[in-house]
Amino acid sequence: MDNLNRLKSLAGEIMDIQSAVALLGWDQQTYMPPGGAEDRGDALSTLSNLLHLKITSIEVGQLLEDLRPVQAGMDPDSDDARLIKVIRREFEKRVKVSSEWVIEFAKVTTMAHSAWEEGKKKSDFSIFQPHLEKIVSLRRDYSSFFAPFDHVYDPQLDDFEPGMKTAEVQAIFNEVRPVQVSLIKRITAQTVVDDSFLRASYDEKDQWDFGVEVITRFGYDWNHGRQDKAVHPFTQTFGIGDVRITTRVEPSRVATALFGTMHEAGHALYELGVDRSLRRTPMASGASMALHESQSRMWENLVGRSLPFWKFFYPRFQEMFPDQVGKVSLATFYRGINKVQPSFIRVEADEATYNLHIMLRLELEIALLEGSLAVKDLPQAWNQRMRDYLGVIPPNDSVGVLQDVHWSGGSFGYFPTYALGNLVSAQLWEVIQKDLPDLDNQIARGEFSDLLAWLRQHVHRFGAKFEPQELVQMITGSNINPQPYLTYLQDKYSEIYHL
Amino acid sequence: MDNLNRLKSLAGEIMDIQSAVALLGWDQQTYMPPGGAEDRGDALSTLSNLLHLKITSIEVGQLLEDLRPVQAGMDPDSDDARLIKVIRREFEKRVKVSSEWVIEFAKVTTMAHSAWEEGKKKSDFSIFQPHLEKIVSLRRDYSSFFAPFDHVYDPQLDDFEPGMKTAEVQAIFNEVRPVQVSLIKRITAQTVVDDSFLRASYDEKDQWDFGVEVITRFGYDWNHGRQDKAVHPFTQTFGIGDVRITTRVEPSRVATALFGTMHEAGHALYELGVDRSLRRTPMASGASMALHESQSRMWENLVGRSLPFWKFFYPRFQEMFPDQVGKVSLATFYRGINKVQPSFIRVEADEATYNLHIMLRLELEIALLEGSLAVKDLPQAWNQRMRDYLGVIPPNDSVGVLQDVHWSGGSFGYFPTYALGNLVSAQLWEVIQKDLPDLDNQIARGEFSDLLAWLRQHVHRFGAKFEPQELVQMITGSNINPQPYLTYLQDKYSEIYHL
Repeated sequence: MDNLNRLKSLAGEIMDIQSAVALLGWDQQTYMPPGGAEDRGDALSTLSNLLHLKITSIEVGQLLEDLRPVQAGMDPDSDDARLIKVIRREFEKRVKVSSEWVIEFAKVTTMAHSAWEEGKKKSDFSIFQPHLEKIVSLRRDYSSFFAPFDHVYDPQLDDFEPGMKTAEVQAIFNEVRPVQVSLIKRITAQTVVDDSFLRASYDEKDQWDFGVEVITRFGYDWNHGRQDKAVHPFTQTFGIGDVRITTRVEPSRVATALFGTMHEAGHALYELGVDRSLRRTPMASGASMALHESQSRMWENLVGRSLPFWKFFYPRFQEMFPDQVGKVSLATFYRGINKVQPSFIRVEADEATYNLHIMLRLELEIALLEGSLAVKDLPQAWNQRMRDYLGVIPPNDSVGVLQDVHWSGGSFGYFPTYALGNLVSAQLWEVIQKDLPDLDNQIARGEFSDLLAWLRQHVHRFGAKFEPQELVQMITGSNINPQPYLTYLQDKYSEIYHL
Repeated sequence: MDNLNRLKSLAGEIMDIQSAVALLGWDQQTYMPPGGAEDRGDALSTLSNLLHLKITSIEVGQLLEDLRPVQAGMDPDSDDARLIKVIRREFEKRVKVSSEWVIEFAKVTTMAHSAWEEGKKKSDFSIFQPHLEKIVSLRRDYSSFFAPFDHVYDPQLDDFEPGMKTAEVQAIFNEVRPVQVSLIKRITAQTVVDDSFLRASYDEKDQWDFGVEVITRFGYDWNHGRQDKAVHPFTQTFGIGDVRITTRVEPSRVATALFGTMHEAGHALYELGVDRSLRRTPMASGASMALHESQSRMWENLVGRSLPFWKFFYPRFQEMFPDQVGKVSLATFYRGINKVQPSFIRVEADEATYNLHIMLRLELEIALLEGSLAVKDLPQAWNQRMRDYLGVIPPNDSVGVLQDVHWSGGSFGYFPTYALGNLVSAQLWEVIQKDLPDLDNQIARGEFSDLLAWLRQHVHRFGAKFEPQELVQMITGSNINPQPYLTYLQDKYSEIYHL
């Protein structure tokens, strides 16, 4: 037990350093003056390196070895056994990667990020191309550290979805793609929905206040969090007792703050709901990116874009914004916030089109890694798929292949988790509706405590104790399954668009 | 040179961790939600420990040994020689202290702080007394690590004023005490000055804006800093490119934010003025607490409470606050902000009484460490000295011996630096006035660039490269000398009070 306690103590220290790294990052995106960037870069680099050294230390390795017999005698689902498993997983992944690769990757992605920014600004892919070529090559090298694998993309995906395989994701997406493509075709054949009122001018402070009112009702605990402004909104965890969100408020795009705030609150509620017994361990976080996204998308879409939600909140919204929506009926407003319109930009996509933006990216990431697509041909491949899936072609690379920051940071394997999150949110929702038959009425009364309690009970409290597929299995009885989401989309839009 | 580069690289990492610790502290006092306290405590403790281990590592010790011959061949005033010296000093101080003491001290001061808070609230010294007894005993043990010493207080002082001896401070204070005591007696015999307009209600945002206007003119660079609110204002450095201040705004005490903002800006200008060649080294900070305080007090008092300053700013102030000071003449306002009135609370003391609050504390700290005063007799000794020096006796311990946080945190040796800072500020000011004969006129025109340039040239750029007494010698030709400050006080108050 001494070894276990020592491992826990080391894990605690690692979490503490992580908390400092999180704060350095949060501050960088909220309050840091521009002139602090160089110092911040140094601090982040030193602490990240320190974190890496701590996680991969000889002592951790030795403890993990010494604990093998102990672990074998444990209930495999006990917190302790799972803690060892989670630490072992992280240790074994990290020690496989050479320091040389880590240093080179940091160097390449720093340069690539600047090149991407410039390329996006000038809408010139050729500026970014040589950097992306290096990144693809490095990501391929990364996979090779984990050879043998079923698919070169598996090690990338595993960083974000522990235990998930490329073939599984492809099988899921192959089910989703035709249904959503066909749904969009049917929708775009209908009369265009009016949502012009969403682009009226809304007072920034009122927008902020309305968002605060909503997420306070959701159950976001201001004693353990806060909201600040950020250009690219995100949620940051500093420990089980301090999970903060950020939002962006745009005067003439009220939907940005409105749904963005609910989205980030969804992430925060997840991390705040982790059981206190997992405090200061690597299990005190979400099970995976997809599980995380299932929470944020649930509060944003299944709750926040639902009719019951607005039955409760719309009168308040109209009262706050009489000039903008005083004469807009609830039905019109509801259709407006659920308008489907294929467009170029992923982050602005509606529920019906969003997943297709993701599938396109996954296919391209896989093709790049497999080598079946050359980086120089990427813009063309991008535009081709945009036409096939969404029926639109970006007028330039800035709103096309260069729109997302992810690749410039060397992030491969992240994109699919967005779509998987959507699927899981609906899968959970099916169970929730069975367990809480009165939920729609509760939401229509502005009551969310049963929903939050359910999520805490079945999802949040476990943190990262279980792998994502395991957790989904436990709750729904099956692996990640796209059917509930597809049913949800079809039902919702059939009604809105009278399909 | 490889050893030197390795030492520099380690020092850089140490500064990076320090930057993270600084941010954890800054956030704790500005934005952290209350529920984050436990996580923050863990993170701060782990990172502080890490910092200690890094600074006292075997590698640092070995490098310092190996560099002895290299250092001997260097120009002793070169940046490299000084860097080695500063690192050696910190290393040698830290390794002398046992880990057992560090752990015990952290435990005792954590408990003591809560007890002090409770004791202060209930104005009951007995709650704090047993904790302070432990602290005094631990501080005595701390000194013993540095035996032999001339005085048991020397090692305490040396932590804040490198190289300074207790006897030196006592000699200085012995010169100051009778002059200030007598000055106060002469002043309090005069008609009481009216400063009631300072306690009118002032709009908080306008107060904030006025402070921002002032320190922007001082030369505070918002690209490398920011201001936030804090209950106990402070300045925090995250690196040479990011030095932030905080302030407190009280509606019916306009002087709090007004002079507090200038004070903190003075600290920040110092750190922002350190030469870039010292970046990411332990020399990138002030030379000592007294030198730091000389800067903050200079901007707050020698500049901010001067008549030339208000010749420029008062019209603007009146325009901003017509109801409060529209009918108050400049002469009356100037007298009001310079009113002398012996009072109980150090942080609210005027320039004429402030140093006496400090001397009292120094004498008590020394007596406690020497053992000539028992902790249980501290309140009585406090009140006795208040009567002797200031002619007032605190009605209770809350506004008496329990008013300051310092002792509860185990801080001994810090207080004298406040008074030394006052003295140094006037000592520097004498030289400045010779070098910049037009300064008063510049200030009366709202121009501070020559003053700031002088401070950068003679004080700021060196950071902590020189010891405080060395630096004062270089600039003024003598050690810390109280005469300029005493002359300044006598001239100023003779005019205001027609003595």
